[in-house]
Parts: sequence; C-alpha cells; structure tokens
Amino acid sequence: MIGFGNVGKRLIHLLSDEHPDHPRLADLHCKFTGIFTKHHGYTQNSNGIDLFGIEKNFEKLNSNIPDEKILQAISNLEYDMLVELSELSIEQKGEPAISFVKAALQRSKHVVTANKGPAAFAYREINELALKNNCRFLCESAVMDGTPVFSLARSGLLGTEIKAVSGILNTTTNFVLSKLESGSSFSEAIQFAQKLGFAEADPSYDLDGWDASAKTAVLANILMDGTITPFDVWRTGIIDLNNEMIANAARNKNRFKLICRAEKSGTNISAKVAPELLPYDHPFASVNGTDSILKIETDLMGPIFIRQENPTLNDTAYGVLNDLLTIAMESN
Amino acid sequence: MIGFGNVGKRLIHLLSDEHPDHPRLADLHCKFTGIFTKHHGYTQNSNGIDLFGIEKNFEKLNSNIPDEKILQAISNLEYDMLVELSELSIEQKGEPAISFVKAALQRSKHVVTANKGPAAFAYREINELALKNNCRFLCESAVMDGTPVFSLARSGLLGTEIKAVSGILNTTTNFVLSKLESGSSFSEAIQFAQKLGFAEADPSYDLDGWDASAKTAVLANILMDGTITPFDVWRTGIIDLNNEMIANAARNKNRFKLICRAEKSGTNISAKVAPELLPYDHPFASVNGTDSILKIETDLMGPIFIRQENPTLNDTAYGVLNDLLTIAMESN
Repeated sequence: MIGFGNVGKRLIHLLSDEHPDHPRLADLHCKFTGIFTKHHGYTQNSNGIDLFGIEKNFEKLNSNIPDEKILQAISNLEYDMLVELSELSIEQKGEPAISFVKAALQRSKHVVTANKGPAAFAYREINELALKNNCRFLCESAVMDGTPVFSLARSGLLGTEIKAVSGILNTTTNFVLSKLESGSSFSEAIQFAQKLGFAEADPSYDLDGWDASAKTAVLANILMDGTITPFDVWRTGIIDLNNEMIANAARNKNRFKLICRAEKSGTNISAKVAPELLPYDHPFASVNGTDSILKIETDLMGPIFIRQENPTLNDTAYGVLNDLLTIAMESN
Repeated sequence: MIGFGNVGKRLIHLLSDEHPDHPRLADLHCKFTGIFTKHHGYTQNSNGIDLFGIEKNFEKLNSNIPDEKILQAISNLEYDMLVELSELSIEQKGEPAISFVKAALQRSKHVVTANKGPAAFAYREINELALKNNCRFLCESAVMDGTPVFSLARSGLLGTEIKAVSGILNTTTNFVLSKLESGSSFSEAIQFAQKLGFAEADPSYDLDGWDASAKTAVLANILMDGTITPFDVWRTGIIDLNNEMIANAARNKNRFKLICRAEKSGTNISAKVAPELLPYDHPFASVNGTDSILKIETDLMGPIFIRQENPTLNDTAYGVLNDLLTIAMESN
C-alpha cells in the first residue's frame, strides 16, 4: 500500500479490528507486505505486517520518503496487488502516482487506487498496460467516494454506449453552496468544511473546480473511452458566486450547483465544469451538503442516476475494498 | 421465449432491425428457436426463427395456447436460455411462470425473466435449483424496468450486507399522485395513464399496491436473502388519498408518495408498502411522474440511491438484454 492517510487507516481497520462486525467479509483474508508513505515513514514485512496497533511498526515515522524509494519497493517487493492511496497532483499531471501504477502493472501486479490522477491523466495507456500484462487497474473510489459507478457500468450497462455523464461530484463546493444559501459567508462556509475534515487547508483545488475537472476526466476516460486530461475540461469554479446571487436564485426557486458534464459525439468528448442554475424540482437540486449525484445517458435506455448521501471515510475505504474483492473474485 | 408482448417485441427489434444502430452490440448474435405466447399462438424453428417480419411466422396467431403445451416446449426444445416474459399473477402466486422457470433450470438451461412472480414467490428455491444445475436465474427487469439494480448489487456492493431498501417502484401510482397534485381527478389520472400505455385495463394491481408489494418481495428475496412473498408485505394502496389531502400537503411543502420498504433485522425481514408524506427536499420527493428510485443501505457504506427517469419499453427490454449479456459473458 502507498499512502497511509485517513482512507488507508479506515481500510486497515475494516480488515483488522472491525473485520468480525461484517459477516460478508468473513472469507476475506488480506496480508499487507509493505506500506510506504510520502511523509510518515514506512513499514514492511514479507510475512505480513501486524495490522493491530499498526503505527508502532512504522520506521522513520516523521520522515519524508523519496519517490524513488517508493518506486523501488513497488518494483522489488513481493505482493499480488498494489493499493495506491497517494494524493492527486494536478501540477505534476498525476505523478508520481502514474509511475507507481505503471511499475506495478509492468510486473503483472493488479492495481487499485483511490487517486484520480492515473485515470485522469493516463487511463488509456494504463489500461492497455494492464490488459497486456493480464491484470487489473481499478479506481472505484476516484469518483463519488466508493459509490459503485464503475462497477455499475461494468456489469449493469453491458452492450450500451455511454453518450453523456453529468452530475455533482465535488463535496466541498456543494457543501459551501448549501451554506451560502443558508446565509453563511464564503469564509465561514469554508472554515466549517475544513473543521468537518473534507476541505483541504488550501481549498482552491475544490473552489476553482480542479477536483471536479479531474473527476470529469476520469469518468470520460473510463466510461466513454476518452483520452482527455483535467486541462481539457472547460472549467469555471464557484468563487464568482455570492450570497446575493444565491438569495436571488432562491426567490425564484432556483439553486446554483457546480455541475460536471462530459458528452461524446463520434469519438470526440467535450467536458465542462461550471456553476449552473437549476430549478428546485431538478433531480440535482435536492443534492445538498456533502451529497453527490451522477446521471448516465446511454444509447439503449433512459437516463439513470446514482446518488450518494452523507459520505464518510467509510465510503472511500469501501470503494477500495470493492475493487480488491472484484479482483479477488475474478482471480478465483 | 415465452410471451411476445411489448417487451418481447422491443427485444426482437433491438436484435434485428435496430441491431446495427448499437455499436456495442455488434458481437451479439442471438438465435430464437421458439416463441410461445398464452393468447397469440407460437412459432418455432430449430435453425432460428426469422426475426424480420416475425409476426408472419406465428401459428394459431389468435388462439390460446395451454400452459401444458408451453411447458412441453420448455422441456423438449433445444435452446441455451429461456427468456420468460409472461405476466405476473398474484392470484396464482407466480404460476405458471414458476413452473416454466423450474422446467428450464432442471434441464440446466439459463433463465432470464422480466416477470416478478418467480422471484417474488419462490426465489430461494429457484436460485438453489439454478446453482445445483450450474446455470443462472436473472430478473433485472422485474424491478425498475431494467435500471441496473441487481447487477449493481452483484458487482458494486461486494462484501456488504444489505440492511434495508426503500423507494418508489410503481409507475402508475406515482404518475397518478403527480396528476392529482396538479388538479386531475382520480379517474382522469388513471385514464391518462392507460392512454400512455403503462396502466393496466384493471388498474387495481397498481392502485392497491400489489405491483409494489411484488417488487418489494423480489428485492427482499434477492438482495436480503429473504423468503417472503407479496402476501407478507404490509400493504396499503393509494385509493384512500384524495385531491384535498394532496393539496393540503402541498401547502406545507409536502408530497404523498407510495413508498416500498424492506428491512432486515437478524434473519427477519419486515416489508411494507404504503403512502408516506415527504417534505419537498426529501430525495424521493422530486421523483415524479413515471420516474422511480431505490435507496440501498448496507453495513459498509452510507446509503446509495439509484434513480430512473422517463422509462419506456426500451428500458425493460434492455434489462432483459443485460441479463442475457451477463450470462453470455460468464459462459465465455
């Protein structure tokens, strides 16, 4: 596993002390042979790291670990599957995660990631590498925190061509817009989101629409066979909105939402993230606070929507777990 | 194929004249060896029935075909898969569809059905028979017209225990409630639904909550390992509602919806279908007209919702097609 932040810790808890609470996980037995972090050291044990009280096993707990050392571990340690939980970097165009993923796939190791970077910047290349090496690259948690989006498409939309996706995919901006509507100022709303733990210390990734653009690129690349990056998404954030605009909209029973859209025409994909004014009875309008929603349009049926309510770290960790179980099931 | 009503005809169109319009179906080649209906004759050809202008191939087009003859065909003809599209009979507790399904499974033939009866009245027995004979019983179109509910659970909720499901699952009652809210009378609303083709000539199956109860039983049996029938669902229809009650609710920004619920506690399942008063900002409240929605709660993540907008016969036919493709994919 690369990274040991909140999602990694939740995953370890699910697989150790909380394991007996979940009857359908009884047959699942995982062994972790190495956990490497960027800023908090590493731990490795080819016989399996003790997951109970795992922190005490870490070496160099307060040290930065260079990417080269992590890459070396990915290239040399023994394991079946890489669980990649590092953070997205837009500036570095998805690196170093993309290199981590490729190094594992080149060794025919399956890869599961919650990081949007690899699929947002290099999905086609990565997926072709996975196919060539007879292994899997999955990233259910990259969009909608583990709500089954990609697994839904893999098994529930067989034979369809996905023509368009749209939705509300960024928690922080949706939460901030809901707070602005109830009278908070921009800075109060952001502080509240930071206190609740889902907004970053620098919230501009969210407010400027970068997170939403990365998710839109992931959806376009995986679901619509695209080769776009977040830089190809026509992007407007929410910072030009204010309380007065939002109050005016409310008087007319309308609500601003930051909407992600990707549409396919021939082999061309156009993608956009921007605030849109929606009437209260629009299926997206009741998606408030930290909720999210995705609409999928295909050539064979009417539009379907998948929606998530009150996501927590549990959901993101579960998305990783579902990918892991998918691979385990296919390998049996 | 058993039955050749609207859904069967849509399916045949998708597989014949409309086939070239859907690029992702290019690899799919189906051969129908027999189509048997209850009231409109039958056609059979072990080399494959000509699907173009199929009606001209039918024998006894205006005759009733006894169940025994249909059962005989299921038991003796050559085929890989039974596509069962007969209608639900609550009075006959899912028969004759249950017997049709069992006869095919006993011969190790896969079964796909859009009929709620088999899963609503006998899912566990049928599924055990399928497992024993190393074949599949799938019924994606039984609930929400082909929106991927069961395929979502099969691949997107691995390792979870489903604790509760709830939603709006009956099109006719939801449409009628929306019409009542906009001032139509009960009989006007029903006539309109009949004109649009989704309400039966005798609408009591819908209005009394039988269709919703059958769907609730299907969900409980498949998703929650239940053994209930529609008779075990605590059932109240919408006929005791009237325009005044609905207008009063609207004044308080509330809306009546016919809500299906099933909850698991230990191995016990309680299920209920009844009108509920929901505030406008409830995730179910904006599901108007012919739309439907399902909420799924599990032990490993927050609630997720799947919603369908403006379903048509295409959706129901697609659900059958997705089941068929699932089996074809697993068999390869």
